[in-house]
Amino acid sequence: MIFRQLFDQDTGTYTYLIADEKTKEAALIDSVRERIDRDVKVLEGLGLKLKYAIETHVHADHVTGAGSMRQLLGDVKVVVNAASEVKCADVLINDGDVLKVGDIEIKALYTPGHTNTCTSYQVGDMLFTGDTLLIGACGRTDFQSGDPAQLYDSIHSKLFSQPDSTKVYPGHDYIGLTMSTIGEEKANNPRLGNNKSKEEFVAIMNGLNLDMPKRIKESVPGNMKCGLAA
Amino acid sequence: MIFRQLFDQDTGTYTYLIADEKTKEAALIDSVRERIDRDVKVLEGLGLKLKYAIETHVHADHVTGAGSMRQLLGDVKVVVNAASEVKCADVLINDGDVLKVGDIEIKALYTPGHTNTCTSYQVGDMLFTGDTLLIGACGRTDFQSGDPAQLYDSIHSKLFSQPDSTKVYPGHDYIGLTMSTIGEEKANNPRLGNNKSKEEFVAIMNGLNLDMPKRIKESVPGNMKCGLAA
Repeated sequence: MIFRQLFDQDTGTYTYLIADEKTKEAALIDSVRERIDRDVKVLEGLGLKLKYAIETHVHADHVTGAGSMRQLLGDVKVVVNAASEVKCADVLINDGDVLKVGDIEIKALYTPGHTNTCTSYQVGDMLFTGDTLLIGACGRTDFQSGDPAQLYDSIHSKLFSQPDSTKVYPGHDYIGLTMSTIGEEKANNPRLGNNKSKEEFVAIMNGLNLDMPKRIKESVPGNMKCGLAA
Repeated sequence: MIFRQLFDQDTGTYTYLIADEKTKEAALIDSVRERIDRDVKVLEGLGLKLKYAIETHVHADHVTGAGSMRQLLGDVKVVVNAASEVKCADVLINDGDVLKVGDIEIKALYTPGHTNTCTSYQVGDMLFTGDTLLIGACGRTDFQSGDPAQLYDSIHSKLFSQPDSTKVYPGHDYIGLTMSTIGEEKANNPRLGNNKSKEEFVAIMNGLNLDMPKRIKESVPGNMKCGLAA
């Protein structure tokens, strides 16, 4: 398997490239519109053919590159969760659905709570958690149908239920961490670790008092159109 | 093996953590002084004991965290190339020397050219190339005893001589790429790829006309003191 983690410094967003070495089929998870030239260059440099542009959710902090990738490269399927109302998508994905690039299976895990469209993806022992689970944190739950109790349940039932050695590749990090493991998050995550109860978690999340994301007014409508208009 | 790539957004610097799962011994390559709190937290979170704080060279763009790590954690050996005059170091390393963390071997490859102290490190099929080889680029050669012809020879004899699948983990990246391979750099690196001759490379490097690094006046003297004074 070819695997690359790519980073957008402006929004702290990770994009992931997963590809099959034999067939050269590739998927990108959470591309960023401003970085598609770089991502196309990486695909070309590795001789890959993009099959899927996958979204973990309707982002509020950046605009996806998925629609632009489809326009540029052709024959790319944009993948979003079925609960979203993203009409420009090609694949509406549900919990347990599997996408294939060559022999590699990318399995969707519906993990609502940060938003009601959040989907994590699993490839072998790697979890691409979007904003559901971040390193030492998690996505906020105060807009876009966010629900801290639901997020707690999603994390516990779909992510923390996996082996401790399972690798966590988040949708963002803002202090230069690139990955973690389920074991580390279960032990050390300040909001969830050390067996925090749902009540403790909900209280933490409801007490965050965060400012709105700077680009929410552009990002959410832009992402509802696969990044093709803001 | 435990492996982590860590990023300093302010200077585009990658720090690498390499550790043995059994003995919990760890090494950090190119720590950044402003990020040592984060790095200590990562070490603690994984239950690791830092044995070596390794430098790929005397950096001109950031101050190392090596000396501070030794002060904070105790019993940490600061490792620099023997050609440097870094008197605060504990280990003066030469080409071919091997450091061990548990059973993991970290082999020094002397790769001068960006500076006369540049050392790449090899762990299995991973190369930590410092500023000798960057993704689609290489370190500049216009100060600190830089020499483009020598850099060309270092890259070709020590790095490009390795199998195409060998992973390249650079000291920096500024556009969100995290790794590459020797095969990709041999094919696509604009300064070196496609069998560029030494003469072509030297001409490219001598024509770069770069501004001085913003922090060079603080960084070089600071790094000569293991980051303990600027």
